[in-house]
Amino acid sequence: MDFDVIKPLIIESSQEKIVLLVMDGLGGLPMEPGGKTELEAAATPNMDALAEKSMLGLHEGIRSGITPGSGPAHLSLFGYDPLKYVVGRGVLSALGIDFDLHAKDIAARGNFCTVDKEGRITDRRAGRIPTEVSERLCNLLRDNVSIPGVEVFLKPVKEYRFMLVIRGEGLRANIQETDPQDVGKKPLPARALDPDSEKAAEIVQEFVRQAEKILANESPANMFLLRGFAQLPNWPKFPEALGLKAAAIAMYPMYRGVAKLVGMDSLPAAQSYDEEIAMLEENWNSYDFFFVHIKKTDSYGEDGDFDKKVHEIEAVDALIPRILALDPSVLIITGDHSTPCLMKKHSWHPVPVLFYAKLCRPDGITSFGERACRQGGLGMRFPAYQLMPLALAHAGRLEKFGA
Amino acid sequence: MDFDVIKPLIIESSQEKIVLLVMDGLGGLPMEPGGKTELEAAATPNMDALAEKSMLGLHEGIRSGITPGSGPAHLSLFGYDPLKYVVGRGVLSALGIDFDLHAKDIAARGNFCTVDKEGRITDRRAGRIPTEVSERLCNLLRDNVSIPGVEVFLKPVKEYRFMLVIRGEGLRANIQETDPQDVGKKPLPARALDPDSEKAAEIVQEFVRQAEKILANESPANMFLLRGFAQLPNWPKFPEALGLKAAAIAMYPMYRGVAKLVGMDSLPAAQSYDEEIAMLEENWNSYDFFFVHIKKTDSYGEDGDFDKKVHEIEAVDALIPRILALDPSVLIITGDHSTPCLMKKHSWHPVPVLFYAKLCRPDGITSFGERACRQGGLGMRFPAYQLMPLALAHAGRLEKFGA
Repeated sequence: MDFDVIKPLIIESSQEKIVLLVMDGLGGLPMEPGGKTELEAAATPNMDALAEKSMLGLHEGIRSGITPGSGPAHLSLFGYDPLKYVVGRGVLSALGIDFDLHAKDIAARGNFCTVDKEGRITDRRAGRIPTEVSERLCNLLRDNVSIPGVEVFLKPVKEYRFMLVIRGEGLRANIQETDPQDVGKKPLPARALDPDSEKAAEIVQEFVRQAEKILANESPANMFLLRGFAQLPNWPKFPEALGLKAAAIAMYPMYRGVAKLVGMDSLPAAQSYDEEIAMLEENWNSYDFFFVHIKKTDSYGEDGDFDKKVHEIEAVDALIPRILALDPSVLIITGDHSTPCLMKKHSWHPVPVLFYAKLCRPDGITSFGERACRQGGLGMRFPAYQLMPLALAHAGRLEKFGA
Repeated sequence: MDFDVIKPLIIESSQEKIVLLVMDGLGGLPMEPGGKTELEAAATPNMDALAEKSMLGLHEGIRSGITPGSGPAHLSLFGYDPLKYVVGRGVLSALGIDFDLHAKDIAARGNFCTVDKEGRITDRRAGRIPTEVSERLCNLLRDNVSIPGVEVFLKPVKEYRFMLVIRGEGLRANIQETDPQDVGKKPLPARALDPDSEKAAEIVQEFVRQAEKILANESPANMFLLRGFAQLPNWPKFPEALGLKAAAIAMYPMYRGVAKLVGMDSLPAAQSYDEEIAMLEENWNSYDFFFVHIKKTDSYGEDGDFDKKVHEIEAVDALIPRILALDPSVLIITGDHSTPCLMKKHSWHPVPVLFYAKLCRPDGITSFGERACRQGGLGMRFPAYQLMPLALAHAGRLEKFGA
């Protein structure tokens, strides 16, 4: 989306509500030739009935053939072209564990690793130590490192991976990674890649020097590598850029994090679909836009469990009447990317979209599935970041362009 | 369209004719769930028969979700991306009343307003004075203002709105608007925003000083605000850029104006559809390209009069045999934007296109309507500015690109 085009057209006084319901990894594939996809196999009477009054289509999160990660896939749904709005990996790491990153913080991804007596890397993942060991090591470092003028935060992520955050004044994150990407080599120094980042690079180096001694007698994780130094990006914020007071309802930190990254309010973590919808109902009058995230469709896709993914889609279908009872002007039901059970991972396949709006030009198609979406008026393989301008238009939130 | 790509490919010697028939505001919506759009409801035997030999599709004038004004919508049909080719509001005002704007003229939009004794604005629209009063005031100013070295033109537009044009040498239009956008404030000075515009800004200020005295005893319109200072843009001209001697046939000034803006010849204003088609017939051998504009489909859309819009589409359908009798190589039948009777205003909904060409790959679809167009080979939601390169190609007017 071109925020500069949208901004002057926004009708601030509008009260119309928009709901974006994302079933993570929704798109699928048949398990055998001639078979149905997960969404096609699911019994979805509510979505099928809604489809008849809606527009259907198939979006692509990034570009044709590019398999999206969760971060960029959601940015695209929020209207941000993910090739233009790139988030540093350190920031994504912090968002993914719900860490409250501040505007000037430097965040990096850490890997615990094993080095020999000369300091040369022998295992870049320290034998994939369990998360609990990583947590103990993070705490050990946190309690024993001391650098004047800055705060240092360390949090385990998963197994050997952890997050490092340095909080202080005048820090910039253009710093070379310390990972030489190869065993047999020593970790690289955290060198500043521009003059503004020299202060932060020196602090990182001091942290590395102190940490090296603290970890010296640990095994197998007696060192670490740092990658993806980054700061929160200075992007147009979703609420101001689109004129929408926005709330995110999501069970998992990663998705709350991406929503916060673009300036949405993140409501407290729900524990069930029922709680998610209850949260939507309770907050209905306080926001213009709701992002509701469903995680398990993706998890079962990654497990390759076709039946459970189908069942999860059916469980979400059962929630639709409660959402419609709130009378949204626009309800978009889609995924962030495909996660076909056949592949057990994210894929590039276009993602089905059901776009319901009171003012839409209905396709009159009576089911929601990949093949049905191919016939829909939204079109095939359109960029996901076109959805938000369409949502604003259908909610009557945009003036016309030019006379 | 990328003119730089097209230009070297043009076959100047071609005699093939292209007709672009624009029914303003053609796209529509059903009035009730499951109903037909205006175009679907209209009995259009000629267009339906032509559809079978044509390609269908749905275009978007600007971008997805953006409701086009008439100016940018037509530019897009003529091949100009309206986000790249932006016209100043003053120029649009002049075009809209058929004023013969010259290349170096400065044009602005004026609002008559009311000010108190201290010169503070009390009504930004002077009680919406009728057009006749505005005309008297424009003439009063024209007859009494005298600025050496320049000509000043004033024309009423509608109610309190008028057009100001200053004609002279060495004028540039980067001038601050005098409208403070608020009552209780004084009009702002017409300040130059760059050194090149200082001469014009001084002339505008001198005009304001003289006009202030001339209007002092008028009521309620004793002052005015000036906005959208602009000059004719220096764009690639349609006839040279596309190798098409081009004529515009339109009843309303705005559309003749936009056609002139891109360098088309504007034929005299027709008074009826019959006259429009007669003009097409008479000029058939003198031009390569004809833009034929039908206004009333939009007017009835804005009135919300479904039956009259349907009837108007049927009246246009009856003209098709006369156009086909001229044997055009390409005939495009479309709208500039949608104006659904349901909404009574311009909208963002994609616009149906019927693209007939002797060399097209026919879709074989036997009716012309929004749902039929969804199945068409032109695709859904494609940018309107892609139509002209397709027209050139289908008229055999483009060489191949590369060896």
